[in-house]
Amino acid sequence: MNNLSDFFEKEITISGFAENVRNLQWVQFIVLRNKNGRVQITIEKSEEQNKEMVEIVNGLTNESTIKVTGILKKNEKVKMGGAEIIPSKIEVTSLSAPELPISIKDKNAAEIDTRLDYRFVDLRNDYNSLIFKIQSDMVKYLREFLYEKEFTEIHTPKLIGTASESGSEVFEVKYFDRKAYLAQSPQFYKQMAMAAGFERIFEVGPVFRAENSNTNRHTTEFTGFDLEFSFINSFEDVMELEEELLTNMLTKLHDKYADIIKETYGKEVIVPKTKFPRIKLADLYKELEERYGYKVSDETKLDLTTEAEKLSYKYAMEVYNSEFIFVTDYPKDKRAFYHMRKDGVTQGYDLIWRGVEITTGAQREHRYDVLKKQAKEKGLDEDVKFYLEFFKYGCPPHGGFGIGVDRLIMLLLGLPSIKEAMFIFRGPNRLNP
Amino acid sequence: MNNLSDFFEKEITISGFAENVRNLQWVQFIVLRNKNGRVQITIEKSEEQNKEMVEIVNGLTNESTIKVTGILKKNEKVKMGGAEIIPSKIEVTSLSAPELPISIKDKNAAEIDTRLDYRFVDLRNDYNSLIFKIQSDMVKYLREFLYEKEFTEIHTPKLIGTASESGSEVFEVKYFDRKAYLAQSPQFYKQMAMAAGFERIFEVGPVFRAENSNTNRHTTEFTGFDLEFSFINSFEDVMELEEELLTNMLTKLHDKYADIIKETYGKEVIVPKTKFPRIKLADLYKELEERYGYKVSDETKLDLTTEAEKLSYKYAMEVYNSEFIFVTDYPKDKRAFYHMRKDGVTQGYDLIWRGVEITTGAQREHRYDVLKKQAKEKGLDEDVKFYLEFFKYGCPPHGGFGIGVDRLIMLLLGLPSIKEAMFIFRGPNRLNP
Repeated sequence: MNNLSDFFEKEITISGFAENVRNLQWVQFIVLRNKNGRVQITIEKSEEQNKEMVEIVNGLTNESTIKVTGILKKNEKVKMGGAEIIPSKIEVTSLSAPELPISIKDKNAAEIDTRLDYRFVDLRNDYNSLIFKIQSDMVKYLREFLYEKEFTEIHTPKLIGTASESGSEVFEVKYFDRKAYLAQSPQFYKQMAMAAGFERIFEVGPVFRAENSNTNRHTTEFTGFDLEFSFINSFEDVMELEEELLTNMLTKLHDKYADIIKETYGKEVIVPKTKFPRIKLADLYKELEERYGYKVSDETKLDLTTEAEKLSYKYAMEVYNSEFIFVTDYPKDKRAFYHMRKDGVTQGYDLIWRGVEITTGAQREHRYDVLKKQAKEKGLDEDVKFYLEFFKYGCPPHGGFGIGVDRLIMLLLGLPSIKEAMFIFRGPNRLNP
Repeated sequence: MNNLSDFFEKEITISGFAENVRNLQWVQFIVLRNKNGRVQITIEKSEEQNKEMVEIVNGLTNESTIKVTGILKKNEKVKMGGAEIIPSKIEVTSLSAPELPISIKDKNAAEIDTRLDYRFVDLRNDYNSLIFKIQSDMVKYLREFLYEKEFTEIHTPKLIGTASESGSEVFEVKYFDRKAYLAQSPQFYKQMAMAAGFERIFEVGPVFRAENSNTNRHTTEFTGFDLEFSFINSFEDVMELEEELLTNMLTKLHDKYADIIKETYGKEVIVPKTKFPRIKLADLYKELEERYGYKVSDETKLDLTTEAEKLSYKYAMEVYNSEFIFVTDYPKDKRAFYHMRKDGVTQGYDLIWRGVEITTGAQREHRYDVLKKQAKEKGLDEDVKFYLEFFKYGCPPHGGFGIGVDRLIMLLLGLPSIKEAMFIFRGPNRLNP
């Protein structure tokens, strides 16, 4: 436990979970766990003044919560931090049922679905709880960088009036006597902020996808980190900002967590030393074929396959010693109508980290007439009508991107599934707890 | 515009909205506006090298966006910052329709509903855009304080499996072949984090209320700032934390914005100098009757009326010179089942600021048996079953509160309606833009 040595020979009061209660012939031991670590509590059964405490500990189950007052003693024989508490008072603040539904110590003792059922117990081990401390700091570091660049954090509505971007994959809400939908992304509203002259904004919030697929990467609700900024010259500006943002975040995470991440998850936190390499989609497929014999049809080459994502990591490491790679110049057919185009090529990119796509970014089409035409081409009409209005009364050239926070932490720590990266996972078959 | 004087006699490139284009006989003026302020651009029509620019400005409509390159000149005659740009190049990056749907300068020229229809134009004036800069910093300051106190930011699901706290006022979602609901608050999941041993958490995220009421204070979706922390001794700890949190936030807001808030909204930012006064609900009604002749039935006294909220502000100012007042000791009938009770009195509070309730906080009941009984008493059963599970395997004593970010900014700036305090408002009759 942190800073214990400051309190040797002093009386302290400490609260936590009774992680392990051992009742031996002459002595009782409790391992108390809280967010600062663990400490041993030792009760000599024979001592008269301990009589009441001994009774209390006799009835104490593992994972109950307790509040302990006692003297902190240095004791080299105690493996756990070389210290123990000799208590004068123990109060049981909540009593756990004697049998736990899943093991806390060995997270792999239960199937992931059983673990998710009992997520409130599952999260009690260091492996799981640390994920969310790191995630909290990760998002903090992302925000700090943007505050310095004079970005404003906004909160856009998740209840929307039309099915938005595509029509499929949108959750429908009963909204009084009509229908509403859950936002698939803050895309349209980030852009509205640009039309409103906010210039630089970001948002951290839930994003909903009604995809009926059960994979390790899919979820129906996740936390999106989205930003948008104005008066850019091209999507190069967007890539540069993202590069800086992620490098800054990884630098800070490395400083604070590199050792414990290595120890707990076996993963290195690697801070990018150079600019992320950039490659055109068509050139990437060429390289993957030449180097690794990865051959696909011309039709398939219009977008990045999951396998190509993985191989692009190999390629980026081999050629550039980079975990990141920007893939650019996607043909318009496979990209959203609001991406700006130049000679039929969209002015955007995907960013691949460790073989997984983490961002789609782009310069947006901000000219009303062009945008309207592009929407029509994709067969979008009534659903985007309100959105097209944003561009009628002047709108700066702008661009942006979105990152999935949960996917980012999954990749950082090498977690086997998005289900482990989320505080509470949501999927087609999972709405509980 | 900020920092212009650093660039006198230098060539600069600047982008923004053409707020005001004036085409006189010999000269053209453009007022360029961006997030740093305003600057004048002056084009002498007679000069030969300006020919192309003059043509461009001839076709330029107000609120178009432009990118200007030119020399920044000091000119005392220019009212706007004593400076002007003599351009060598003007590029129109987007052209506004000639007629704007609402006035930008005079926000009161249009009804609020028309303004909301054209929110992307409405937000372009200083009065409206400043709200969101301040809100961004407000939330930043709240977070900063909590990071220092070792709180972790979490993201809880908004899609939930049961109608949760009450059953009424919940939006229903079509979730594949079943129903889901939108979370009315992160309450249950904040508490789950306590059972999971997270100890100190907060969340900033959307909160959904299916209330069919159209008032200046109601909205169907708003941004909640929620926190929860463990190992408290009583709800006094919760009040103290909130007091510190808000005082810290107001101190920082005062330092950065006091003058401009006074100037723009006519409101003082008042930093609390002392602890917030505390009064029991019954005592408050006694005081309000004695002092202001405010008489209500005994039944009414079980909760705080809107009028009593207003009068409590008067009372707190008169007696304590405080804009804040904690009201405690609510009877259990009017409070949520999860509030801890002691002798029939709930261990929680409402916090009133400037005559409006901004928070409900409490110590929560963390003992499984007691909590189960309290839920049953309120007629809650299946819907809270998953939640009661959280308390079976040990759960620390804990408490917390929630604040509505939009309401907070409305009160800070004295805005007439929550509709003006939100980037995009949502109500029973409003799902657009």
